[in-house]
Amino acid sequence: MKMYQEIVAIKTSGKCLHKITPQVMTVVKNSGIQTGICSVFILHTSASLIIQENADPDVLADLSNFFSKLVPENGVDYLHSAEGADDMPSHIRSILTSTSENIIIRNGKLLLGTWQGLYLWEHRSRSNLRQVAIHIQGE
Amino acid sequence: MKMYQEIVAIKTSGKCLHKITPQVMTVVKNSGIQTGICSVFILHTSASLIIQENADPDVLADLSNFFSKLVPENGVDYLHSAEGADDMPSHIRSILTSTSENIIIRNGKLLLGTWQGLYLWEHRSRSNLRQVAIHIQGE
Amino acid sequence: MKMYQEIVAIKTSGKCLHKITPQVMTVVKNSGIQTGICSVFILHTSASLIIQENADPDVLADLSNFFSKLVPENGVDYLHSAEGADDMPSHIRSILTSTSENIIIRNGKLLLGTWQGLYLWEHRSRSNLRQVAIHIQGE
Repeated sequence: MKMYQEIVAIKTSGKCLHKITPQVMTVVKNSGIQTGICSVFILHTSASLIIQENADPDVLADLSNFFSKLVPENGVDYLHSAEGADDMPSHIRSILTSTSENIIIRNGKLLLGTWQGLYLWEHRSRSNLRQVAIHIQGE
Repeated sequence: MKMYQEIVAIKTSGKCLHKITPQVMTVVKNSGIQTGICSVFILHTSASLIIQENADPDVLADLSNFFSKLVPENGVDYLHSAEGADDMPSHIRSILTSTSENIIIRNGKLLLGTWQGLYLWEHRSRSNLRQVAIHIQGE
Repeated sequence: MKMYQEIVAIKTSGKCLHKITPQVMTVVKNSGIQTGICSVFILHTSASLIIQENADPDVLADLSNFFSKLVPENGVDYLHSAEGADDMPSHIRSILTSTSENIIIRNGKLLLGTWQGLYLWEHRSRSNLRQVAIHIQGE
């Protein structure tokens, strides 16, 4: 049984869903592991991870739009406002999505459904360099 | 340390919460692993997993009702509508729940609380054959 | 490759976010594992786990406030009401957050971002003794 860890930096440019399946696949290849589990963990509380449809970009637009309405920036009296109107909503949106995703490795590849992609969701308005930690365990 | 993988097909019949604890327990038994971790991963983006109360069916009815109101099918202008009015809400409901659950194995059994059951949540209106991948690691 | 399991009891005093990073760190130390993965799993369906900002307590207050409005106790006709007005909302709030969190271990420590803390979220009004199962795998 082997283990392999890497921390990958992802540059974001404001609120957006960034597909990171290719970066994680590269780490799986680097590990040389054929069968096992890949844990992907974002080291932040105002950006998060989701696994969603990778085909129609309208799905991502609808997701963003839904979350903008569910967790609004304006019209809510957040106590935590010193870091900007987009910060507290970012924390809430992180809670409603995922800090980590755990994907099975089979035949040296991430075992994802045909339509599944792994996305980093940047919830802040400004650009950020986000750290994503990856731990792989297997053989 | 051993590893064991299986992909289980679950037939759904429209929107419903299907308890899949028994199917996953069977895979744990097949693995022969007594201590370890069991990763359950659904290979779809319009159905998801949750761990919830397995006693009172009213809890499941209330959950379904809450999500129907939180993520409505009608009255929202989704861009992604070509696959039916229930498709985009299904993607959003998947995001708000889980694509995978990781359950500890102890004494050859899933370590769940007394009231916890693992459910596959079918969010689409039509029947589907859903693929659930299971990876077990331990001894 | 080693494995280590412990079940930790956490006493809660009504609705609150309890930081449990220190308790989990103690279990990691007990395990002696330097590199690996730590799975934290709450054995209940009316309390849950989140990873969130550990600096400004206002963030936790805003989170609680947001969830109180999103999943109200009153004004909704829940079918499941025999266990109290706070029980069904607790189940829904659990679904919207996490039953388990999986944190990478690096250099004998939980690999968390600077601002990340692990919290047990008690959703019930009364005090409870909550069981949190921890499974660590690594070397």
